[in-house]
Amino acid sequence: MNFASDNGAGVAAPILEAIVASSRVNAPAYGADAYTARAASRLCEIFERELAVFLVSTGTAANALALAALTKPWQAAFCHEEAHIIDDECGAPEFFSGGAKLVGIPGLNGKIEPAALRATLARFPLGQAKTTQPAALSLSQATEAGTAYRPAEIAALAAIAHEAGMRVHLDGARFANALVKTGASPAEMTWRSGVDVLSLGATKDGALACEAVIMFDPALAAATPYQRKRAGQTLSKGRFLGAQMEAWLAGGLWLDLARRANTSARRLGEGLAKAPGVRLVFPVEVNEVFVVAPEAALAAWRAAGARFHDWSTRATPPEAAPRAGEAMARFVTSFETDEKEIDALIALAAAPYRSRNS
Amino acid sequence: MNFASDNGAGVAAPILEAIVASSRVNAPAYGADAYTARAASRLCEIFERELAVFLVSTGTAANALALAALTKPWQAAFCHEEAHIIDDECGAPEFFSGGAKLVGIPGLNGKIEPAALRATLARFPLGQAKTTQPAALSLSQATEAGTAYRPAEIAALAAIAHEAGMRVHLDGARFANALVKTGASPAEMTWRSGVDVLSLGATKDGALACEAVIMFDPALAAATPYQRKRAGQTLSKGRFLGAQMEAWLAGGLWLDLARRANTSARRLGEGLAKAPGVRLVFPVEVNEVFVVAPEAALAAWRAAGARFHDWSTRATPPEAAPRAGEAMARFVTSFETDEKEIDALIALAAAPYRSRNS
Amino acid sequence: MNFASDNGAGVAAPILEAIVASSRVNAPAYGADAYTARAASRLCEIFERELAVFLVSTGTAANALALAALTKPWQAAFCHEEAHIIDDECGAPEFFSGGAKLVGIPGLNGKIEPAALRATLARFPLGQAKTTQPAALSLSQATEAGTAYRPAEIAALAAIAHEAGMRVHLDGARFANALVKTGASPAEMTWRSGVDVLSLGATKDGALACEAVIMFDPALAAATPYQRKRAGQTLSKGRFLGAQMEAWLAGGLWLDLARRANTSARRLGEGLAKAPGVRLVFPVEVNEVFVVAPEAALAAWRAAGARFHDWSTRATPPEAAPRAGEAMARFVTSFETDEKEIDALIALAAAPYRSRNS
Amino acid sequence: MNFASDNGAGVAAPILEAIVASSRVNAPAYGADAYTARAASRLCEIFERELAVFLVSTGTAANALALAALTKPWQAAFCHEEAHIIDDECGAPEFFSGGAKLVGIPGLNGKIEPAALRATLARFPLGQAKTTQPAALSLSQATEAGTAYRPAEIAALAAIAHEAGMRVHLDGARFANALVKTGASPAEMTWRSGVDVLSLGATKDGALACEAVIMFDPALAAATPYQRKRAGQTLSKGRFLGAQMEAWLAGGLWLDLARRANTSARRLGEGLAKAPGVRLVFPVEVNEVFVVAPEAALAAWRAAGARFHDWSTRATPPEAAPRAGEAMARFVTSFETDEKEIDALIALAAAPYRSRNS
Repeated sequence: MNFASDNGAGVAAPILEAIVASSRVNAPAYGADAYTARAASRLCEIFERELAVFLVSTGTAANALALAALTKPWQAAFCHEEAHIIDDECGAPEFFSGGAKLVGIPGLNGKIEPAALRATLARFPLGQAKTTQPAALSLSQATEAGTAYRPAEIAALAAIAHEAGMRVHLDGARFANALVKTGASPAEMTWRSGVDVLSLGATKDGALACEAVIMFDPALAAATPYQRKRAGQTLSKGRFLGAQMEAWLAGGLWLDLARRANTSARRLGEGLAKAPGVRLVFPVEVNEVFVVAPEAALAAWRAAGARFHDWSTRATPPEAAPRAGEAMARFVTSFETDEKEIDALIALAAAPYRSRNS
Repeated sequence: MNFASDNGAGVAAPILEAIVASSRVNAPAYGADAYTARAASRLCEIFERELAVFLVSTGTAANALALAALTKPWQAAFCHEEAHIIDDECGAPEFFSGGAKLVGIPGLNGKIEPAALRATLARFPLGQAKTTQPAALSLSQATEAGTAYRPAEIAALAAIAHEAGMRVHLDGARFANALVKTGASPAEMTWRSGVDVLSLGATKDGALACEAVIMFDPALAAATPYQRKRAGQTLSKGRFLGAQMEAWLAGGLWLDLARRANTSARRLGEGLAKAPGVRLVFPVEVNEVFVVAPEAALAAWRAAGARFHDWSTRATPPEAAPRAGEAMARFVTSFETDEKEIDALIALAAAPYRSRNS
Repeated sequence: MNFASDNGAGVAAPILEAIVASSRVNAPAYGADAYTARAASRLCEIFERELAVFLVSTGTAANALALAALTKPWQAAFCHEEAHIIDDECGAPEFFSGGAKLVGIPGLNGKIEPAALRATLARFPLGQAKTTQPAALSLSQATEAGTAYRPAEIAALAAIAHEAGMRVHLDGARFANALVKTGASPAEMTWRSGVDVLSLGATKDGALACEAVIMFDPALAAATPYQRKRAGQTLSKGRFLGAQMEAWLAGGLWLDLARRANTSARRLGEGLAKAPGVRLVFPVEVNEVFVVAPEAALAAWRAAGARFHDWSTRATPPEAAPRAGEAMARFVTSFETDEKEIDALIALAAAPYRSRNS
Repeated sequence: MNFASDNGAGVAAPILEAIVASSRVNAPAYGADAYTARAASRLCEIFERELAVFLVSTGTAANALALAALTKPWQAAFCHEEAHIIDDECGAPEFFSGGAKLVGIPGLNGKIEPAALRATLARFPLGQAKTTQPAALSLSQATEAGTAYRPAEIAALAAIAHEAGMRVHLDGARFANALVKTGASPAEMTWRSGVDVLSLGATKDGALACEAVIMFDPALAAATPYQRKRAGQTLSKGRFLGAQMEAWLAGGLWLDLARRANTSARRLGEGLAKAPGVRLVFPVEVNEVFVVAPEAALAAWRAAGARFHDWSTRATPPEAAPRAGEAMARFVTSFETDEKEIDALIALAAAPYRSRNS
């Protein structure tokens, strides 16, 4: 019953096979290989346009390189106040950008709302030297609350951003999960809705370690080869990134894996929602389930071997907030999650638990 | 006849098998897994002391994190004027350190000599605020000239560095090759000779993408977990770094692979040295061969399918410097280099060539 | 009727005389002069302890150097959400620290409250590599709302900070004004209440350009000489900073000048508070007056020659917030403000105004 | 006999008067005042074209801001190996640029020669991601050796730089001295010879603390307002920078002051050159005199009250290098240097001295 993270999973078999196969040849170093070239071509087809593509080994690096392409040191990037880039990357965007400011915006269910974005931007007057200048809006897709923006939501926010002279970044660590949920095409979810740069994550969705920085306007990529190298993100045996990406995309594997993870989460969410004293905090749209439950119940599940993270310091809709004796927890599924593990946890949750105070 | 780079090789079979095997289980994320723990333990045994170990995906990241642990933004690190860290990493040490200065020191055969180090340090008075302050000496082992420092050479330089209040870093992208050449033990080559931090490279020596930052004084590692995360170098599925390192070390594989590469280079060097018009520039001590040869000969080898890099902008001993019509070239062997490829190139070089002007 | 900024004032006569006098001799460069030494000694007397003192030319530089002494790039500094350091310095603290994160905390009347500080810190778990680590609490004294912390308020916040392993910085751009208001001694307001580093501003209070970074624990100053030089803040003719500071402190000039500015603000605040449709937003404690007034009234004042800044994007207590047709404005007094200017504005405000829509 | 530095001098009377006068009015803050505007206009007239002008308080800040406008973090700036920016600013250019690399080029008499520039550039191939990319050439005018480039020399170097896609910066801490020496016009010495950005220093030439960053292509200045603010270099009472610059330029004061300093140095140089055992190291072209002299003689001068800096770690032409028992020393004159001081030192040097060993 391991629901701690989708990063705990292994590698999907076709990707592992591609790694092994690509090891058999001598290939040019630093990404000048055929695997990487084919992966980039395939991404252009899938996104229906010319792209600049850079493969790196972590989502943090992908986000930070993407933001560094958009944000100068004296500028600001705006994101949800609980975005991964502001909370969970130890300041990587600040590092890669040379000290830019991340500005968090509150919003329900992990999403930024247009009015909140406008209100925040009003505090950053253009051309005033004492104010870090607005440069980028970063949206997480799927969000940190396990919800997915619809293309129209992205388009509305991107329009505000562009109007203010900003560019739009999408942190797509769980992009495939959001596509599967919404049915949108990759193009609709990104550049057709105004996204300028995408961090596309394969790792959580079955790869070993492979993420892509994708620029829809290749002009944005002028400095990225240098910034990537300088960040130690240009792998010498770069063909292994290319081979992973190629295999991940081939035959729609990326969407299949994401669909499995989403399906597991939905099953888990539906089961937990029926458990006594348990309520869902956010709609279950991708591969994460957030619940508020009695602390004693959570302790009992842990004692029975379930693994998941406490999430109690995070924001919730007011009506869902933990009350005394309750806590919030996060459960994540992956392409490998076994139905039996899900059902075991649901069974556990359905059982009565003994309160600590009783 | 591919001698362009040891980065063009694939992955040694036992390492590939370890990757596949470690994919079968769910493992804690971000390096908190058993593979990584075992790899670190094994390194402690091999280096005969307690260590702080951080696994990352590139040699550039390893070097830059190592130097960032030693060098504050207003300080300076000293290295050979053709060191990888100063010439080939697009400023990664400056980036990771927050803008420290790298100071190049000239020296024959890729090595820094004690007198040159002392003379350079004299220009950096301690405690004078206008001068970036000396903080680190970085040695490349093996050097960029394909030579290997002996432990006593390292100890002599480290003594000067320590006396000046500096720490010593070893860029060990080809550390195993240097060990095999010199017969020194890992401990002798590092902390027993005064090395404080080692970048230990497995990638060029048979891994997929795995390098270790090793601190012999664990106190130096206080900030490294944050700096690594912030640099996007904390792999989410970190067990794959651990599994690579564990397999690379197991049964002395790392030394066997390096020995193969060294042997290939020696064979190639001996063969090329006998070719008409060709002379070796540096002693062939590890897996690199540097020659000066007539430009027409080099062109002929290339035309026949040989791959290698022009090295003509690099320093040579005065007596070896290219004369008119000559150029310098670098040939690199790997654990995969086939004896037949070597002999084919030697045969080619032995044949008379047609000058461009004839 | 110029109430735009205390930065619009000139230089107090004794300070100007000190500049002229100190120009007559040849003095050692870069702050190694007798003026600077005497100023530092005098500060030690005034603050009743040994200090490390660094003179610089701007408050932004003083704050940024102070924070850089406390905060590493992968750490976070906490401040009020409208603090000068987070809103008005174009990211200087991020720049000087190498990319640290500033975290804003909301709070009434420009002050941070203990509970809010604790709640924010709970989101920054110690030792977790993905989280920028708490390193500094920065308080503005006086605050951006023109209020002054009492020593006990500072002590309560500093205790929380220290308990969390953090250091405490005071942005004292208007420190003298806060001293005059509260009657606290310099020592009580700072290190006796737990402050580790103070930015002490003379410029707004009568100097030409002179601010001091004062470390109550001189060990914090180890890197500051280098950071100051590197920031271009080590003036070559440093004696002119020393001479300003010496004259500013001599005979309590600094407190006299601040008292004048505070008195002017109190007079202005009392006058405006009686004007029709006008209400004070914050208590007038130092040399700033914040009012909400009908937009038409503010326009009329401006048309009559009054200069002040619109402040409508800033936070207010809920009950004071501008309603439709109203706006918020800031008025600042200085040691030079003329009583007649104040009374002229009060007279203007007392008069009926014509609404734009009438 | 104080020849330690031109930074030890006071402020020229007309500049001091301008400071006092400009203190009498209330002026807009942060450089939006009339003094600053008039100073900028006057610079446009003097340089015969439209300019972007930024006033700051130190030469280090001016250089670092200028270079930051030209050099991105992954780029390199080239300068003489003993340039102030590489040796004496504690890494300020690296700091302001976000970690760019400074590359020193050797050259006689403090000057870079075209062939040396070309040879260095050959090691920085364009478009290769592992190599920091050439972005700026920085020349010191006058040089660190007290010599002055002629416009044709600057033009020759600038042509090479521009051909390589680089921009040209002039560190003009002693620009007026170089103008006076060469008779070139400000325009000839800068943009007509290919200079893109000038750091124009007034401080060493009679100001209190005032330097200008001057961009001949105003498009280069887009980010400078933010970078200046962020560096704490936007003085709140900016009118005092404007007033200094205005007075410095008025009636050619800047050239008159430089002429006085140059004349003093020439007199000193001619005198010392005749002293027993003393030889000039570089041509005396501006306000600095470099000599090699017996250590015993230098000690005797010091004992008699002369102040000057040891310069023995610096490069010299081979024929001038100190031999055993000799050392190199630097003497600097200023607009305030008294003829009597000069003659006293010359008299001292003319006298026989007692060797330490005798």
